[in-house]
Amino acid sequence: MNTTSPLKQRQRFAVIDLEGVLLPELWIAIADYTDVDALRITTRDEPDYDILMAHRMQALSKHDITVPTIKKALRDVKPLAGAYEFLLKLRSVMPLVILSDTFEQLALPLMAQLGWPTLMCHTFVLNDNEIVDYKLRTTDQKAKAVAAFQSLNYKVVAAGDSYNDVTMLSKADIGILFRASENVLTEYPELPSCTEYEDLLHLLTAES
Amino acid sequence: MNTTSPLKQRQRFAVIDLEGVLLPELWIAIADYTDVDALRITTRDEPDYDILMAHRMQALSKHDITVPTIKKALRDVKPLAGAYEFLLKLRSVMPLVILSDTFEQLALPLMAQLGWPTLMCHTFVLNDNEIVDYKLRTTDQKAKAVAAFQSLNYKVVAAGDSYNDVTMLSKADIGILFRASENVLTEYPELPSCTEYEDLLHLLTAES
Repeated sequence: MNTTSPLKQRQRFAVIDLEGVLLPELWIAIADYTDVDALRITTRDEPDYDILMAHRMQALSKHDITVPTIKKALRDVKPLAGAYEFLLKLRSVMPLVILSDTFEQLALPLMAQLGWPTLMCHTFVLNDNEIVDYKLRTTDQKAKAVAAFQSLNYKVVAAGDSYNDVTMLSKADIGILFRASENVLTEYPELPSCTEYEDLLHLLTAES
Repeated sequence: MNTTSPLKQRQRFAVIDLEGVLLPELWIAIADYTDVDALRITTRDEPDYDILMAHRMQALSKHDITVPTIKKALRDVKPLAGAYEFLLKLRSVMPLVILSDTFEQLALPLMAQLGWPTLMCHTFVLNDNEIVDYKLRTTDQKAKAVAAFQSLNYKVVAAGDSYNDVTMLSKADIGILFRASENVLTEYPELPSCTEYEDLLHLLTAES
């Protein structure tokens, strides 16, 4: 990073997707723990988030999967190898938030293992321990958050792996696909991509 | 914090001032180290930020205070007693950013001691190690950031101690003066205030 910050160089702000970029897919971990295969579909497979979530809600209800079960399922989830170090390096040169379409009841406890980065996500609607519904804080929150940080005069740099990251990556000043699936890479050849944290750090911090 | 997140309960987002709330005043530390009394005036004393900064820039130039000197001056600055623990507790229940009218060259290295919270601030304009000017990323960034997070459908809770926090605290859904000076408390009696982290945590997280 340039420490001289000439006038024409805008301060940067990083927005980073969570699952697939820093953590393994949380719904897969829940599927593994509960042995419910219906929970294996992720945003990498199903581009329509509403369809995906309706599917997940139905599976949770059908198999009586409540918050304590989910907590047990996610207790041993560890960051991807190198994710913690990557985040620490990026946070030491620019402000950063994690932008995820996950839910605070799933992901917030896992932030401890990433050094408590700021997490912007959604919430479940609970009746005691039963997950009765989900509530998107706002539609297309990722692209809207990028626009919000740009409106505060930040040059926004972003990384994500899935369909639900594409509007965020396209809207960002620098948007990088990280370890994206083949179908995402094929559909969005215009987005730069990489598979190693070292390369991602370089792309997000390089002088332009 | 309520973990049930009923539909009418919006997700919260915390924005917290830095100097006077989590760290001692950095310009005072620079004044102490350099023995330049002209650097002792802070936002607690001078409400007009442009006047304050013109004054500081003049003093830096007059006394040849460069970036290495400032780094030495701030090397031993420690968070206020209890600040780290307060931040950790707040970050474990909601997303959080530090909103400060300081400069990344002063404050970013000190974020390590606070566990690398997300810092939104301004930047100096440097010519090598010489501080030739300062650049506000945007005017009234604190109130604008609150509005931005509200536009993303967060209920924004805020804490600050000085004149430059008042628009942020007034705009926030919950805005608390923390350890404010007598003149600020007298001028803004409508803002709730407290002096202990335990009380601040309670006020920012209480059910409304």
